[in-house]
Amino acid sequence: MWGGRFAEGPAAIMREINASIPFDKALWRQDIAASKAHVAMLGACGIVSGEDAVAIERGLDSVAAEYEADGVPENWDLEDIHMTTESRLAELIGPVAGRLHTARSRNDQVATDFRLWVRDAIDAVDAGLSALQRALVTRAGEHADSIMPGFTHLQAAQPVTLGHHLMAYYEMIRRDRSRFQAARARLNESPLGSAALAGTGFPIDREMTAQALGFDRATANSLDAVSDRDFALDYLQAAVQCALHLSRLAEELILWASQPFGFVRLPDSLSTGSSIMPQKKNPDAAELVRGHAGRIVGCATALTVTMKGLPLAYSKDMQDDKPPVFEAASLLALSIAAMTGMIADAEFRTDRMRQAAELGYATATDLADWLVREAGLPFREAHHVTGAAVRLAEEKGVALDALSLDELQAIDARIGEGVYKALSVEASVAARASHGGTAPDQVRRRVADARTALEMDR
Amino acid sequence: MWGGRFAEGPAAIMREINASIPFDKALWRQDIAASKAHVAMLGACGIVSGEDAVAIERGLDSVAAEYEADGVPENWDLEDIHMTTESRLAELIGPVAGRLHTARSRNDQVATDFRLWVRDAIDAVDAGLSALQRALVTRAGEHADSIMPGFTHLQAAQPVTLGHHLMAYYEMIRRDRSRFQAARARLNESPLGSAALAGTGFPIDREMTAQALGFDRATANSLDAVSDRDFALDYLQAAVQCALHLSRLAEELILWASQPFGFVRLPDSLSTGSSIMPQKKNPDAAELVRGHAGRIVGCATALTVTMKGLPLAYSKDMQDDKPPVFEAASLLALSIAAMTGMIADAEFRTDRMRQAAELGYATATDLADWLVREAGLPFREAHHVTGAAVRLAEEKGVALDALSLDELQAIDARIGEGVYKALSVEASVAARASHGGTAPDQVRRRVADARTALEMDR
Amino acid sequence: MWGGRFAEGPAAIMREINASIPFDKALWRQDIAASKAHVAMLGACGIVSGEDAVAIERGLDSVAAEYEADGVPENWDLEDIHMTTESRLAELIGPVAGRLHTARSRNDQVATDFRLWVRDAIDAVDAGLSALQRALVTRAGEHADSIMPGFTHLQAAQPVTLGHHLMAYYEMIRRDRSRFQAARARLNESPLGSAALAGTGFPIDREMTAQALGFDRATANSLDAVSDRDFALDYLQAAVQCALHLSRLAEELILWASQPFGFVRLPDSLSTGSSIMPQKKNPDAAELVRGHAGRIVGCATALTVTMKGLPLAYSKDMQDDKPPVFEAASLLALSIAAMTGMIADAEFRTDRMRQAAELGYATATDLADWLVREAGLPFREAHHVTGAAVRLAEEKGVALDALSLDELQAIDARIGEGVYKALSVEASVAARASHGGTAPDQVRRRVADARTALEMDR
Amino acid sequence: MWGGRFAEGPAAIMREINASIPFDKALWRQDIAASKAHVAMLGACGIVSGEDAVAIERGLDSVAAEYEADGVPENWDLEDIHMTTESRLAELIGPVAGRLHTARSRNDQVATDFRLWVRDAIDAVDAGLSALQRALVTRAGEHADSIMPGFTHLQAAQPVTLGHHLMAYYEMIRRDRSRFQAARARLNESPLGSAALAGTGFPIDREMTAQALGFDRATANSLDAVSDRDFALDYLQAAVQCALHLSRLAEELILWASQPFGFVRLPDSLSTGSSIMPQKKNPDAAELVRGHAGRIVGCATALTVTMKGLPLAYSKDMQDDKPPVFEAASLLALSIAAMTGMIADAEFRTDRMRQAAELGYATATDLADWLVREAGLPFREAHHVTGAAVRLAEEKGVALDALSLDELQAIDARIGEGVYKALSVEASVAARASHGGTAPDQVRRRVADARTALEMDR
Repeated sequence: MWGGRFAEGPAAIMREINASIPFDKALWRQDIAASKAHVAMLGACGIVSGEDAVAIERGLDSVAAEYEADGVPENWDLEDIHMTTESRLAELIGPVAGRLHTARSRNDQVATDFRLWVRDAIDAVDAGLSALQRALVTRAGEHADSIMPGFTHLQAAQPVTLGHHLMAYYEMIRRDRSRFQAARARLNESPLGSAALAGTGFPIDREMTAQALGFDRATANSLDAVSDRDFALDYLQAAVQCALHLSRLAEELILWASQPFGFVRLPDSLSTGSSIMPQKKNPDAAELVRGHAGRIVGCATALTVTMKGLPLAYSKDMQDDKPPVFEAASLLALSIAAMTGMIADAEFRTDRMRQAAELGYATATDLADWLVREAGLPFREAHHVTGAAVRLAEEKGVALDALSLDELQAIDARIGEGVYKALSVEASVAARASHGGTAPDQVRRRVADARTALEMDR
Repeated sequence: MWGGRFAEGPAAIMREINASIPFDKALWRQDIAASKAHVAMLGACGIVSGEDAVAIERGLDSVAAEYEADGVPENWDLEDIHMTTESRLAELIGPVAGRLHTARSRNDQVATDFRLWVRDAIDAVDAGLSALQRALVTRAGEHADSIMPGFTHLQAAQPVTLGHHLMAYYEMIRRDRSRFQAARARLNESPLGSAALAGTGFPIDREMTAQALGFDRATANSLDAVSDRDFALDYLQAAVQCALHLSRLAEELILWASQPFGFVRLPDSLSTGSSIMPQKKNPDAAELVRGHAGRIVGCATALTVTMKGLPLAYSKDMQDDKPPVFEAASLLALSIAAMTGMIADAEFRTDRMRQAAELGYATATDLADWLVREAGLPFREAHHVTGAAVRLAEEKGVALDALSLDELQAIDARIGEGVYKALSVEASVAARASHGGTAPDQVRRRVADARTALEMDR
Repeated sequence: MWGGRFAEGPAAIMREINASIPFDKALWRQDIAASKAHVAMLGACGIVSGEDAVAIERGLDSVAAEYEADGVPENWDLEDIHMTTESRLAELIGPVAGRLHTARSRNDQVATDFRLWVRDAIDAVDAGLSALQRALVTRAGEHADSIMPGFTHLQAAQPVTLGHHLMAYYEMIRRDRSRFQAARARLNESPLGSAALAGTGFPIDREMTAQALGFDRATANSLDAVSDRDFALDYLQAAVQCALHLSRLAEELILWASQPFGFVRLPDSLSTGSSIMPQKKNPDAAELVRGHAGRIVGCATALTVTMKGLPLAYSKDMQDDKPPVFEAASLLALSIAAMTGMIADAEFRTDRMRQAAELGYATATDLADWLVREAGLPFREAHHVTGAAVRLAEEKGVALDALSLDELQAIDARIGEGVYKALSVEASVAARASHGGTAPDQVRRRVADARTALEMDR
Repeated sequence: MWGGRFAEGPAAIMREINASIPFDKALWRQDIAASKAHVAMLGACGIVSGEDAVAIERGLDSVAAEYEADGVPENWDLEDIHMTTESRLAELIGPVAGRLHTARSRNDQVATDFRLWVRDAIDAVDAGLSALQRALVTRAGEHADSIMPGFTHLQAAQPVTLGHHLMAYYEMIRRDRSRFQAARARLNESPLGSAALAGTGFPIDREMTAQALGFDRATANSLDAVSDRDFALDYLQAAVQCALHLSRLAEELILWASQPFGFVRLPDSLSTGSSIMPQKKNPDAAELVRGHAGRIVGCATALTVTMKGLPLAYSKDMQDDKPPVFEAASLLALSIAAMTGMIADAEFRTDRMRQAAELGYATATDLADWLVREAGLPFREAHHVTGAAVRLAEEKGVALDALSLDELQAIDARIGEGVYKALSVEASVAARASHGGTAPDQVRRRVADARTALEMDR
């Protein structure tokens, strides 16, 4: 009736569907820390005796030492990390272990442990993103003057510098870090002491446990505290945006590494080759970073859908909160590290970039701007004149600045000798010196600002 | 620079991000089967000698026996199940192992193995859904006459029978099975022999391997064959719809098990209790089925996003195809089994249902219908009259059929003695004998149809 | 060839797929404001003459007046709101209109306009959420003492107060507002002056336009500024979490309005009736709020998928950014308003709630807590004793506090007369006076805190 | 209190959130058709008089004529298309209009109308996809011999033909059409006659209405019939996969149209230019097709989330089923038409493709295959030898076939003169003549098969 896998019937199914220990054992450090903070508070408030509190704390240390040494045992009958730990504690210190669970419940325990885990994950991702920013800034500094084509619609539009391009990603990562920091600040309230759903009648001191665990304060509503998974969604949503940024950079690296572009050689250590085509270096790491974005979006969707329409307070559906968060955290950490490696060690082929920047009449806008600035034309009219010049250059199969002054003046008499200074790609990028523009000096300024900001991180 | 986890730098990151063996070892049976079919064909076509073919086949059997006994070794340097198997084969039989990879590539290997795996997963889910249908039909047959309130907007609307309600889910599962079968038929083409992307110059016989592996035919385009993951999305999309249906049934079981409803006692084996509240039986299995729907939606989203905008042919992003499929398959199998157990063993509290069906003037429509049928009123006018009757009953705090004939005739003189027969919940359900209606005879007919259909499954 | 709808061939298809004016005309106020700020700056910086600047500003005012009076004309050949406005301006003031587009491009225009629109949407949603919080706090204040069953797993667990339950949603909305505020702060940088992608050679003053438009500063990288849609995703992600909260409250109102629960009568103005069942009041508004959560999740998914893997800088895919944001904003505004109405005008049936709170031995935990507190048992042992008491009460079919002291002492001799004070639902809620607990005094304190916080909003 | 937009309070909010007429008026043709089928059946079964039936049918024709001429009036008080039509019918023919609603309800009406609409949408998309296939097959036939680089990981891997590449998309679209056809078959059951949720007591003939509306049969369970939106999800899921395929082709066209690739010039009619850069032709249509994939995924997600966890039978949440389906259908139709135009009119630059195919030692596999075939090496050993040859060619900066026989034999003495025939790109593609391979003859065979299949469509 149950199919081969569940030959033993409902009991076997229940054991498998119900047990969270296979994944929530990842919470063991947080679980031990929260239990220690709880029992220290119970002792300080006289809810358990000082002697019992000490015995329990020592017992928890022993359990932690065992976990550290041998891993967390996975006994499905003990369901989750909380019961696993409490059961082992009872084996080690006897019935006094039963006093640990005074004035708390698994509902506030899991809420506390999971918040602590997500907080740690945020701190880890912030460190990773800081390293990625440093790699970007270093390479941007090296390439503040390296000219490449700037694309819109993947068509060459105007020349930019590689340093400017890399600094665009610095900005995205800056926002990502701000998003994770906002999530951390919002998360940092302690649910411990909310008990099953209604608070407790024991004279506990929730501020004391909050402080011991590094929380800013205790949560204000016990029903909310055990039903809330906003902090997990905040984390996943920030991860989604970060993964999108990485997917864009990955896409560009894959494009740039293709033979037709040839803008970059990715580090061997992050590529795979092929035994018959030694020249073939597949940008595997970049592709996996791009692919992982899909899975991270899937993780965020999973928890979003699971939480939709759940009545208060705790429902067992919420046990499905952890696998997507754990998976996203692992994929994101790996993606950030791989991207950092690629940026740090990429060999940018600036000659190929420079060459490509010459194509496509990318300085046509500079001609139009010159006409506005120097000859006083309205921009829309300057556009028109420029169009005629580009058409002529195209017909002759030459670059814009290879047209003679006579030829240009035949199009519009107001064009003067000075225009040639505007038509090289170097002049073009140097001119775009507005705040945030691609001019090398601007890029160097932004790089310096970024270095200052990153210094302050440490 | 790389953060603690990746202390060894890019090489360590690459090993971790690149290796698929931690998850694709699940494909080992399919990988062995496909390799055996391939080498048998190479032998038959004279591409390798008969002797070599036999040696390789025997070697593959040995590798399979080792996997069966000891599991698949997880050596990240060998990247995936394909290299792991080929490498072990070479250890066992020497350089002749190198002939196995003639006229194929990892790209068509993984496409073949994964299709075979998904096909097996479809067959397993079909068996599970058939069991669930049998449980639904059995219980529907028992409760063809059990009256319960039918809800719209979760407001009591008209009485229905429990058997009818359960058979609604039989219909949903019927569509789910049809969806999985359509996916199976569409999937069942063999990519083997497409090689890296362009086909092969060796005189292979693709129909022979297709047939050996139970495929209906060989795929028609090699570029498509190695780039296509439609079959995985088909599976995931069918899983999503199935999970939605299960989530609806789970929601109802949770509602019905709540004290205010009290329509069902779920089997102890699929609930959890509480040591202090023995009366409290949490519908954990139902909640987890509902929660899993979220994660299954997440899995489908993951692969959808990963595939978006990928150029042909194989890109490494596509390595992210397997984890979501494996996860969804596992969650779905468990959900179906748990639901089958709950339906099979639920104790329906038909007395509570019957009682609830009396509330809410649920037979008011029957009064309106009677007025149309027996007194010839247009339906909209009959509505009006009925409204007045319900208002009177409400004012008097009685059921509709507790109004006297005088009272009813004061509202509309055309109402006659016969109306009372229409106003009981039994009469109401018995009357709805249109095809697919809730009348017990209709339900029994549908149950009989379903039994016949299920018989034909075996 | 093109099918009926596109009988005219590619040109007709292109007009339809390319035109954004059908939806981006919603940006007209922002577009006018940004153009006015831009031209004022051009004038101040001497890039256009003061005279021209004034003429353009007046012209823009005229265009705005026309839009206000007659709406924005929808001419697909003018593609978008930017060209529509510029074209009308040229009709009104002649060729000088062509000077407006100096030192800017549609890429930075659309980025600026859309940010301004999203900022306005955030301000609107914040006002709506503040109103919803006020409604929640008002009703929570009224019902600080109203006892209802607190559920976990939708099973009665422990008594709570309705005020406490409503304040849980106050907390969720508080986090929502904080999320929208963080999005606003992150968004509030001006992309104007980034031009097409590379900045501009004109001596513009980006801080001046930033300030004029209420931005905190100018963006730091022009490539990023025109490629970035984080601000739209931030908005959508915050909307998703808010919609999830509303979906949970909606689910509860639907449950509570069902006959078996009967905890609430929703306001007539936000329900629909049925002409034949006057007692039937469908909670349509609540159901639509719950349903809209799905669509808002869809909107966020849409933009997420669209942005995945796009290379820099602007790609036309990004034109698909606006419809999901506009749709989500509309659905969310409506959902918040409907929920505010339902909370403000709901008639809570506190008698039914109180009655339901008595069921299910919901004070069993209080007995266990008493044993720990007064008789010094470890909690796990107290659980055990309580279990025996509940079983006895169940067998006798009575409430816990209807067991005699003799009966209780037969279970455990340490139970004393004082226990009865702990066993009423009133005593139970009053006892849970820990910070954030359900005790009426705690609830009143939280309500007072919330009132203070809301006062500060104004 | 309600914010500006909802100044009138709850009533205004309810009107706006509740009214579906702004979007469901799109169903008017289906609504009229279903009502005509229903009343004809009521007449045939003697439930209404023949005279009344005729009057109602004629009245419905008049309403339809009005809608056709003037559009559907949007009066929010009439809520939806069903009430709008019935109300207008009553104005036209008087109280007899009230007989139309006998033995049906809005719940089965909307289910019927929407199924009919989706069925029409499937037929339209099928016609569009057939046109796209014809365009692909035509161009593939023209380019069966045109050589281009085949990519994996976006790295040149092996030469293929453009015809082969285009036929890969023919295969994807073939599966898309099969998916839509499966959805159509599953959808094609008539819910009409299921009434509100329980069936009806009137002696209706559901097969008669089913047949009149082109359904294969009547649904088997009334509760399911009004609660089911699988058919809408089937449509959306098929649309998602189709949109993914289009997004891949769009990505390739965008890549190919970039200057570094230069493989294609897209038709002017489906591109936009720039007034200053006449050479710049942005692939807008392709970008919008790729972007639309995101929105179509969003539509499918929306309905998926909305349906999760809904209890039976109809809930108002389900009113949110139509906007995502309507939006996806519109975006998909436009995407297919645009893609058909691009494929039909693209100018493939086969010279650039041929040139690119020479790069990257793309025939290295052919050398390895030659060693296996002609010299009997195991494939893995052949790989090795080939690697050495490629390294030598790389060092010398020449193509593989520019190495002398002496040089090759120095690497492996078994290499003979014949190898040179294998090393040209023409030889390489010609060799890959396995079923589904890229050899021109294979491509022509597949093109012929496809033409036959498409002929049978007509």
